[in-house]
Amino acid sequence: MDFSTKFNALLRRVETGLDLWLPKSDVRPGRIHAAMRYSVEAGGKRIRPVIVLATADFLQPAGPRDAVPAAVAVECLHTYSLIHDDLPCMDNDDLRRGRPTVHRAFDEATALLAGDALLTHALGLVVTAYAAEPALAVGLAADMADAAGSRRLIGGQVEDLAAEGRTDLTAADLDFIHLNKTAAMLELSFSLGARIGGASEAERASLVRVGRELGLAFQIIDDVLDATSDTAALGKTAGKDAKAGKVTSVSLYGIEASRRRAADHAAAARASLTAVRGGDPFLAALIDSLTVRTR
Amino acid sequence: MDFSTKFNALLRRVETGLDLWLPKSDVRPGRIHAAMRYSVEAGGKRIRPVIVLATADFLQPAGPRDAVPAAVAVECLHTYSLIHDDLPCMDNDDLRRGRPTVHRAFDEATALLAGDALLTHALGLVVTAYAAEPALAVGLAADMADAAGSRRLIGGQVEDLAAEGRTDLTAADLDFIHLNKTAAMLELSFSLGARIGGASEAERASLVRVGRELGLAFQIIDDVLDATSDTAALGKTAGKDAKAGKVTSVSLYGIEASRRRAADHAAAARASLTAVRGGDPFLAALIDSLTVRTR
Repeated sequence: MDFSTKFNALLRRVETGLDLWLPKSDVRPGRIHAAMRYSVEAGGKRIRPVIVLATADFLQPAGPRDAVPAAVAVECLHTYSLIHDDLPCMDNDDLRRGRPTVHRAFDEATALLAGDALLTHALGLVVTAYAAEPALAVGLAADMADAAGSRRLIGGQVEDLAAEGRTDLTAADLDFIHLNKTAAMLELSFSLGARIGGASEAERASLVRVGRELGLAFQIIDDVLDATSDTAALGKTAGKDAKAGKVTSVSLYGIEASRRRAADHAAAARASLTAVRGGDPFLAALIDSLTVRTR
Repeated sequence: MDFSTKFNALLRRVETGLDLWLPKSDVRPGRIHAAMRYSVEAGGKRIRPVIVLATADFLQPAGPRDAVPAAVAVECLHTYSLIHDDLPCMDNDDLRRGRPTVHRAFDEATALLAGDALLTHALGLVVTAYAAEPALAVGLAADMADAAGSRRLIGGQVEDLAAEGRTDLTAADLDFIHLNKTAAMLELSFSLGARIGGASEAERASLVRVGRELGLAFQIIDDVLDATSDTAALGKTAGKDAKAGKVTSVSLYGIEASRRRAADHAAAARASLTAVRGGDPFLAALIDSLTVRTR
């Protein structure tokens, strides 16, 4: 099966899972459940839940465990963070993926509560869906709370907000933001897939490292594209970082060194994947597709 | 040991536990951890965590399990809901317990993220602190996600917000709000204590009912006090509900019938407690202290 056929097959499992595992819009109070579905159905690239499914499939090709609830939970977490990021007191965005953001389509209080509800649902879903194997459920939930917590995802958001307008940001500060705001959710996706697939602790650590290196490569490439693409090719406004005086990989290291750094992280991600049972062609192709991006 | 001596002993365990189990203010990023501690240390009556500890103590007087992490988790959940409730897009409160609310003392983005972080921390704490008994940890986390989720705590907040300015609210609508906005967290407190104390499922169900009846009594009494007390005796502005044209127990049933309804719920709480191993003097006194309030 070629890459895009397999990707689309996984994507369909994610979409079916989201519909199955999110409360229906007619569950009381309908407004909050409609807002949760509106935001999740806006539909991004679903990279994180696809990683959960692909990692579990790789480790247990005919395995008995269903990775879909964990994949859904990761997408709920990701969506919650986007809803809260878009709020007026944060990035104040009116549009996401061409549609009004939740606080625009509904109202600010509903967006706040829909985010809260998706976060709560994500954690509740893994403990209930895997309750028959409580040690597994505890591992999944602990990973999620750690990755989404104040030291990681939220910590990255806090420092990213604080970095706005600061020109004295160090390389270590930028690393902290990239590692927590971007890489934490990718590490989590590999870790959940690894637990469900029955990975050893050493295998899981290698797969978490795949997520970390992939996240770091991904973020540097984003910075490079912002500096080198035109808006038409990028599909979003280019040159925003330089205009805002933002400290990025490009402002710290320059374009060529940033490209080398991204390539190094991508290579480390591929090597860490190969270290696990020789690697997996689909996940390797996924890493390539995310790190050889033109937009 | 008399009631207030025992209450204060439990309170000290709660305060020590909060200090122990919350990230220190110097953990990076310091600002988010300072905001989490600021809000938790504002210190309410700690009724919910005291119930967790007292319920576990009652069922396993010399038991091996430490109920403190679960008590801390419940207080973190409660505090998160207060921080988000106080935000400008919700109740827009500048003060809570005489101190500036988190978004006033810090800023709105920090308050949003501190709430998110406390919710995440609460769920992470129960799964990690009880990980040695994964089936227990799963039960605790599932209870928390259910009580805090979109059908219960968040659902109650959504309908309470939607009720503002509506004069056509039915008794069933008001029940939904009281049951979910107020009773859910008390049910949860009894349920966590019951699980940690090793209650049977029948005992746990009875204790959850104590929380439900107590929550319903508590909320009706709040409505009655708002209508009958003067501001000095109440310690907060009295008569707010009537002024706002708010549908309450008093507007639906009148003062005398509301008092009877509250007394009935309090009696049901006491009866449901007595059904579990003959009841517990401290918890019985706690129910009385919360349902025979003058403010």
